[in-house]
Amino acid sequence: MRALNWNGSEFSLDPAYPTPAADDLSSLIRVRLAGICSTDLQILRGYMGFRGVLGHEMVGEVVEGPRELVGKRVVSEINFACGRCESCGIGLGRHCPRRRVMGILGAGGSFAEYVAAPTENLHLVPDGLSDEEAVFTEPLAAAFEILEQVELNFSDEVLVLGDGKLGLLCAQALRLTGARVSAVGKHEKKLAILKKLGIRALPLSDWKPHPCDVVVEATGSTSGLKIAIDAVRPRGTLVLKSTLAHDHSLSLAPVVINEITVVGSRCGPFPPALEALANKSISVTPLIEKVYPLNEGVEAVADAGRSGALKVLLRP
Amino acid sequence: MRALNWNGSEFSLDPAYPTPAADDLSSLIRVRLAGICSTDLQILRGYMGFRGVLGHEMVGEVVEGPRELVGKRVVSEINFACGRCESCGIGLGRHCPRRRVMGILGAGGSFAEYVAAPTENLHLVPDGLSDEEAVFTEPLAAAFEILEQVELNFSDEVLVLGDGKLGLLCAQALRLTGARVSAVGKHEKKLAILKKLGIRALPLSDWKPHPCDVVVEATGSTSGLKIAIDAVRPRGTLVLKSTLAHDHSLSLAPVVINEITVVGSRCGPFPPALEALANKSISVTPLIEKVYPLNEGVEAVADAGRSGALKVLLRP
Repeated sequence: MRALNWNGSEFSLDPAYPTPAADDLSSLIRVRLAGICSTDLQILRGYMGFRGVLGHEMVGEVVEGPRELVGKRVVSEINFACGRCESCGIGLGRHCPRRRVMGILGAGGSFAEYVAAPTENLHLVPDGLSDEEAVFTEPLAAAFEILEQVELNFSDEVLVLGDGKLGLLCAQALRLTGARVSAVGKHEKKLAILKKLGIRALPLSDWKPHPCDVVVEATGSTSGLKIAIDAVRPRGTLVLKSTLAHDHSLSLAPVVINEITVVGSRCGPFPPALEALANKSISVTPLIEKVYPLNEGVEAVADAGRSGALKVLLRP
Repeated sequence: MRALNWNGSEFSLDPAYPTPAADDLSSLIRVRLAGICSTDLQILRGYMGFRGVLGHEMVGEVVEGPRELVGKRVVSEINFACGRCESCGIGLGRHCPRRRVMGILGAGGSFAEYVAAPTENLHLVPDGLSDEEAVFTEPLAAAFEILEQVELNFSDEVLVLGDGKLGLLCAQALRLTGARVSAVGKHEKKLAILKKLGIRALPLSDWKPHPCDVVVEATGSTSGLKIAIDAVRPRGTLVLKSTLAHDHSLSLAPVVINEITVVGSRCGPFPPALEALANKSISVTPLIEKVYPLNEGVEAVADAGRSGALKVLLRP
């Protein structure tokens, strides 16, 4: 099959990559659309030491697997848990220490014609959802993860720092709680997407620092993290949504002095994300920068790495 | 009065420092015993930019104030709140943005013959408590603060990293919950204090890293913080108990990947600390390194700064 392969030094389209095999517990999925995430770009800089087919955002059609799924459109959760350890036993399969992760850790990814995934990881895509919407399920689930971890009240003042893809999804997901959400970023084009949806969004230069109940750090930069720490009110909550692979130089003294709770937040639950997409309470298609054919995947990934780029998709 | 004064460049005994004045809302306290804290040592290195009489741990006798308090032994909470702002209104006076803090921010400290404090900050010392015990109320309250912020279960595995004064108090306070507490440090002498109390305590070199439900960082070092982050199980809790004034260089990626909750923890409630001291469920006198007369305060502070030193006290 055709697949975008990273061998640790070269990232290229392999026209004859071995098609993954499905077994009793897994399904083979023909990828209809895949999304490029910042994590993919970090992996190409060495993060996780991953080698193989990149990609963990996808929507596809089951071609091998249980009869009732074959021919159906699905999205796949990306953490492949062992199902037998203590973490799995308490429902924390996403934290299984023996997990493989699609396109990130020990499992091939979605930048290919086909991808294999444990059948239990698959979720059917409702008919009313286009591929262009369903492909956002994984990053949107990551945004919904915040709501699993932090209890928000109507009266809470929430700040989302960063107007990247994840920031735009987080701002929308958090707004569903009724909390007062503001998003702060650097790109007028992206902030305009939120404004159109009725969400307060403003450039960093116009933002007047004041203490917020909950701050979501989604800039992925050390400077953003510092602004985020300073923006949390005493006893407030800071959600770390960006995985920053490198070391920061920063002081955690304000976290102690102001008794801030910092919540690391990673992958999230697919069902609420699919439901929100299905009932159109979250708008994702304005986040699409461009759709590339898989054959132009190397260029697509370069495009996704441009400052200010929104979601770049690959169609095999 | 005699007082240990820090003018920003020199730390010395002033034999004729102005005695603070009590007003309608505050009391004047003759200091019976004061404790030297790591924060005092940090202030002498520039932390907080404080100038004046150092010291925020004390037990004393009221000499001016409400009639029912005069002649009584008291300890004083160190955050002097405005009582009128939003934080004060919701019971977070310890986070009042206009607060003064005894010996740390805008208010004279306890390394002196007399100290003034808002009368509402004072707590009577029960008769059964010696001065040598009561002087630990403030740091012990900081240890009890963890129990206000984190819910511990019997089955929780708790690790306290650092065998300094605060670590030894935290290990004892957390043990009261029934959780399985281990303390890890570098000083056999200090670890022995916990062992004598039946608390598992071992040198870092003997500690075998494994995921803990709750980790308390009380080393005050960047290396300790890194060990602490790595010791927390996925979805577990890291309590930051040390105020580190300087920048660290570290990666917060494990916080995100393992979805750790980091809780900054500072000053705590005095009543449970006084109660625990009164009913002897916490042992503090083994933590006393030496008691110096106030006149030898400069030497005492130098002694407190020695690696491995326990609690150094000053008697005016």
